[in-house]
Amino acid sequence: MSERLDVGILGATGTVGQELIVALATHPWFRVAWVGASERSVGKRYADATPWRLRTPRPDAVAEMVVEECVPVTAPRLVFSGLDSTVAGEVEAAFATAGHTVVSNARNYRMDADVPLLIPEINPDHLQLLEEQTRVRQWPGKLVANPNCSTIVMTLALAPLCQFGLTHVMVSTLQAVSGAGYPGVSSLDIVGNILPHIDGEESKMESETQKVLGAVTHGRVVPHEVVVSAQTTRVPVINGHTALISVKFETPPPPGDIIRAFRDFSGRPQAEQFPTAPCHPVCYLDDPNRPQPKLDVDREGGMAVTVGRLRECPVLDYKFIVLGHNTVRGAAGAAVLNAELMKVDGLVSI
Amino acid sequence: MSERLDVGILGATGTVGQELIVALATHPWFRVAWVGASERSVGKRYADATPWRLRTPRPDAVAEMVVEECVPVTAPRLVFSGLDSTVAGEVEAAFATAGHTVVSNARNYRMDADVPLLIPEINPDHLQLLEEQTRVRQWPGKLVANPNCSTIVMTLALAPLCQFGLTHVMVSTLQAVSGAGYPGVSSLDIVGNILPHIDGEESKMESETQKVLGAVTHGRVVPHEVVVSAQTTRVPVINGHTALISVKFETPPPPGDIIRAFRDFSGRPQAEQFPTAPCHPVCYLDDPNRPQPKLDVDREGGMAVTVGRLRECPVLDYKFIVLGHNTVRGAAGAAVLNAELMKVDGLVSI
Amino acid sequence: MSERLDVGILGATGTVGQELIVALATHPWFRVAWVGASERSVGKRYADATPWRLRTPRPDAVAEMVVEECVPVTAPRLVFSGLDSTVAGEVEAAFATAGHTVVSNARNYRMDADVPLLIPEINPDHLQLLEEQTRVRQWPGKLVANPNCSTIVMTLALAPLCQFGLTHVMVSTLQAVSGAGYPGVSSLDIVGNILPHIDGEESKMESETQKVLGAVTHGRVVPHEVVVSAQTTRVPVINGHTALISVKFETPPPPGDIIRAFRDFSGRPQAEQFPTAPCHPVCYLDDPNRPQPKLDVDREGGMAVTVGRLRECPVLDYKFIVLGHNTVRGAAGAAVLNAELMKVDGLVSI
Amino acid sequence: MSERLDVGILGATGTVGQELIVALATHPWFRVAWVGASERSVGKRYADATPWRLRTPRPDAVAEMVVEECVPVTAPRLVFSGLDSTVAGEVEAAFATAGHTVVSNARNYRMDADVPLLIPEINPDHLQLLEEQTRVRQWPGKLVANPNCSTIVMTLALAPLCQFGLTHVMVSTLQAVSGAGYPGVSSLDIVGNILPHIDGEESKMESETQKVLGAVTHGRVVPHEVVVSAQTTRVPVINGHTALISVKFETPPPPGDIIRAFRDFSGRPQAEQFPTAPCHPVCYLDDPNRPQPKLDVDREGGMAVTVGRLRECPVLDYKFIVLGHNTVRGAAGAAVLNAELMKVDGLVSI
Repeated sequence: MSERLDVGILGATGTVGQELIVALATHPWFRVAWVGASERSVGKRYADATPWRLRTPRPDAVAEMVVEECVPVTAPRLVFSGLDSTVAGEVEAAFATAGHTVVSNARNYRMDADVPLLIPEINPDHLQLLEEQTRVRQWPGKLVANPNCSTIVMTLALAPLCQFGLTHVMVSTLQAVSGAGYPGVSSLDIVGNILPHIDGEESKMESETQKVLGAVTHGRVVPHEVVVSAQTTRVPVINGHTALISVKFETPPPPGDIIRAFRDFSGRPQAEQFPTAPCHPVCYLDDPNRPQPKLDVDREGGMAVTVGRLRECPVLDYKFIVLGHNTVRGAAGAAVLNAELMKVDGLVSI
Repeated sequence: MSERLDVGILGATGTVGQELIVALATHPWFRVAWVGASERSVGKRYADATPWRLRTPRPDAVAEMVVEECVPVTAPRLVFSGLDSTVAGEVEAAFATAGHTVVSNARNYRMDADVPLLIPEINPDHLQLLEEQTRVRQWPGKLVANPNCSTIVMTLALAPLCQFGLTHVMVSTLQAVSGAGYPGVSSLDIVGNILPHIDGEESKMESETQKVLGAVTHGRVVPHEVVVSAQTTRVPVINGHTALISVKFETPPPPGDIIRAFRDFSGRPQAEQFPTAPCHPVCYLDDPNRPQPKLDVDREGGMAVTVGRLRECPVLDYKFIVLGHNTVRGAAGAAVLNAELMKVDGLVSI
Repeated sequence: MSERLDVGILGATGTVGQELIVALATHPWFRVAWVGASERSVGKRYADATPWRLRTPRPDAVAEMVVEECVPVTAPRLVFSGLDSTVAGEVEAAFATAGHTVVSNARNYRMDADVPLLIPEINPDHLQLLEEQTRVRQWPGKLVANPNCSTIVMTLALAPLCQFGLTHVMVSTLQAVSGAGYPGVSSLDIVGNILPHIDGEESKMESETQKVLGAVTHGRVVPHEVVVSAQTTRVPVINGHTALISVKFETPPPPGDIIRAFRDFSGRPQAEQFPTAPCHPVCYLDDPNRPQPKLDVDREGGMAVTVGRLRECPVLDYKFIVLGHNTVRGAAGAAVLNAELMKVDGLVSI
Repeated sequence: MSERLDVGILGATGTVGQELIVALATHPWFRVAWVGASERSVGKRYADATPWRLRTPRPDAVAEMVVEECVPVTAPRLVFSGLDSTVAGEVEAAFATAGHTVVSNARNYRMDADVPLLIPEINPDHLQLLEEQTRVRQWPGKLVANPNCSTIVMTLALAPLCQFGLTHVMVSTLQAVSGAGYPGVSSLDIVGNILPHIDGEESKMESETQKVLGAVTHGRVVPHEVVVSAQTTRVPVINGHTALISVKFETPPPPGDIIRAFRDFSGRPQAEQFPTAPCHPVCYLDDPNRPQPKLDVDREGGMAVTVGRLRECPVLDYKFIVLGHNTVRGAAGAAVLNAELMKVDGLVSI
């Protein structure tokens, strides 16, 4: 694999686009060769078109690239989409129609029956849906999506528990402002304050989780029957979604089994050593004061979630807390891991 | 009632003590005539002994008072206690033994069978326990307590729902730093961060709620059977505890009935117009972006809690959010309202 | 004065507009009778058109008003302008041309030679410029402006020092996010962070100060010769601009004289008891830990600035800190005080 | 240099001690072999004695070490001191008396005539003072100190300007809470607030700067004649002190020369490639929105300071902003760089 595959980024000047560029800067398999953005930026140097917002400095390699229009003509075969949902639907379809493989972070196609909603540690077999996608849409290309950021963080902590017959989940989130993009949340609304509502977030967590954890039968996902109830809030934290979770099982296991399930959890990204895979996707800490965004958000480059405070729940069976990096594990890193899975499975080629 | 009753404050230099002084500064029935604090402050002018921490300026009336030792000798018959739990147990007992009426905010005696754990809108009849208290402890004085701050905020929103047969409550809190006193939470731990653990808080919410909502029979509280499960966190907010709540009923009412129950809720403080009573102890807002600490914490002088976002819960029956001022409704104002109830019932005299 | 004068508000749905509505809600002389805003809001109920952002609840009186287009036809003779500078120039001129008196918070006309840049405690005589304004512009109406928020806060602390021959001022500001309006500063830029640059702010402080402190001779302001150098930053504070100031005098007075000058400072608003006037426009505190936004921003309803930490400066003569409420004393309250001055001087009539 | 020198850490469980442990974890020359702390921690495993506060995880190598009493007996020859100033004076003297080399971050000896106050890029020749130290104190060991955190950050930006005849400096700081240690600043004092006063900080900046920039003649430092005036504040930022600076020169150079001086600045750490040395100790950015703590504090591992916004100053000659990492460049990293200098100069041996 000495040669890196050229990839493109749709929405390259936005926050997810910037995270994608960072995530791919030193990637051993992929090389950013094309950056697309909205009309306003087209024709400019990437460095001029993009007010860089991340702590990690802008990789030099992209600074001189010229921003292209988001149309398929000159783009590489594999494109990552960090587009806003207002435009993602049309643009991503145009790319798939033109034969491109689209690895999307947008919400538009997530719940479509023929679109794999992937978390490679959990449901790599959902790639099977692509056959149905080809049949139904007649796209020469393909499209896969990753779930919403808070869904990914929570589901990584739920997946290890499915073996115990998970039936109900109550979740309350304290979500970072970076999840709303830039400029996103006004400082007047959040400095010293809490926002009790994130539009559409609760229903995404409730439905996407069932699809991600579902099984594929006859080319269709049968959603997992777990019932999820979510309350989502915004807090004055830059990066890191915290989720307070209570779960109910068919037969509740002893707590030691649950902690072992968290710690032992791994999947194909770990077994096959994907470049972006964390060694341990779920880290359980015994310290009752953890996880904390400040201390734990960057674990394994932001690709691992941290769980803590497992204890019995008087109403359901157990409660615990999970924290994950919303723009890395919950967005850009999630998309890159999806692309790695597709590459390994021969679904992306030069 | 042209004459105001002299009262004393135990722990007058601390944060709850300061809140008590503010709450009583213009009180029509009570007048702060005595301030007690730890050895370090004894003999100093109150203004010199107290680094004032509140937005509301220090009332002039107390500035020149000399801080006394926390012993009963010279103190008025009625004392409010804002003492830390490390000393409250002994000191409060000494005052009750010496014949004083102690209205306590400390946690030490809250769960004792003979101590009324009061929220005057909810359980004024728990004052009956004082007869048992006199019998058991042989105190010439009396002691009543208010619940923990997060319990008060939540329970004010639960009380209107008991009529529907409330059976289960799941609650996640986002608690303000003022709840931890001064200096309390280090800025290094909370600026841009979330703390996932507040020592002892979850069990207090789970047990105190049952006592507060319980019925008194034969001089004892029979705890309410509602099962409560709490997850409590600390957030970078100065004042205002937010609680995300899901509830289950024996027979779930339609949502309109619940909202009406919130809005119509009132008790003796309202009916008898106690000076510190809010007109509407529970305010329900239709705006999905409310309640917010910044916008709602000071409602009715901080004595009313604000509820919002009532919606169905896929796991239990309904979910909603409640916000209340933790140092006013949850501490100093709670104690003052308790004293007003006792005064009206003739349990406090000159 | 039993009858209140009808007034209108240009830009009534924005943050300054909301502050104006609060400032006028219980005003003894003025009554908001007309609210104007941009096309998007025209024809809607004020309550529907305006996402209310302030801690103080929206006054009921305006809730049902219908938002009007910002054209003079139906508006009262006296209008306050909280318009954004992108539109204020044209709209305010249109109102003055139609015979209205415009009390503006926008920056557009501030530095024009014939526009009074008023702080009523400091330069009420600048109203003389209106004669020149009438002559030059041929407006049947009039227009006065208040300075930029940080200029007002600083200049209130400088004015008492002019008697000592103030020659040089170095100022560094730590400005609240509310100064940037709504949505204004992105939370991603300011939570746990400092922004080192506020566009145009430094030059405003350097030039407006000279005009405000200048003397009117022959119908023109001769700018004060004080040389001002400003460095302005944005900090994660909701309300309250803090300014760190060093000053140089022709003949430096002893520190006691300076403190006395701060404390004794007052002007026509105090002498003639304007409704919005603070009793003491400048409050000097001895405590070295003051002023603080949290503790001091609301002094005298936000209309007084707080000064502290006067000490010798090794480079210039003295240094000290001043804090003021940027949206009250620095914007809405400033405009209302200007209107009160004009009313008293017979420049506003029914 | 294949063998690493054993070093000890005084005050190893505190925040500076933790930073020192991180800074030395992978150091090619030094190896932490001994950790000392206060009585409370003595005899415990380091992992048990230390509530770890840093983002960087605790290096495994120290976890099992047993915390020692802060007495010289078993400690290595070279010790770093992160002790609090209340105990540093006595303990550090005891170590130097016992023949140890003490590299101190405490303030106790900084201004003593025979103690080098080092910033290796600026005044490595101040090590000459050690001869005087040996003569005066008769210590078999040695003691060197680094300046206060805000002094280091500022002085790194001033040193390149000394060539132009720097005569006056006005500085206002916005300092991070980590500068106050743990628990340090109470969250109640700083969330959404500014503290206008840091005890002793201003005089440190004013005097230490003159010593650091001074020349050594006949075994004594002749302080630089630059006059410094400082105003220091605390802001809700975790790491990174921002300083707003105005400077006056004997003969002001053109701005291009100043920017070049910042960018070209380097010293012995760069020329001789000390392990902890940043490639460019001062980085000048053209973007007017920089430096920002969030984006720039970690530049070159936190060892470089970032300067921006150079512009003319109407009162002095030029103004600009500098930002640096207060616990890395301003404390632990500063001490390590000092030890590297001493090692290179043969003042530390095995």
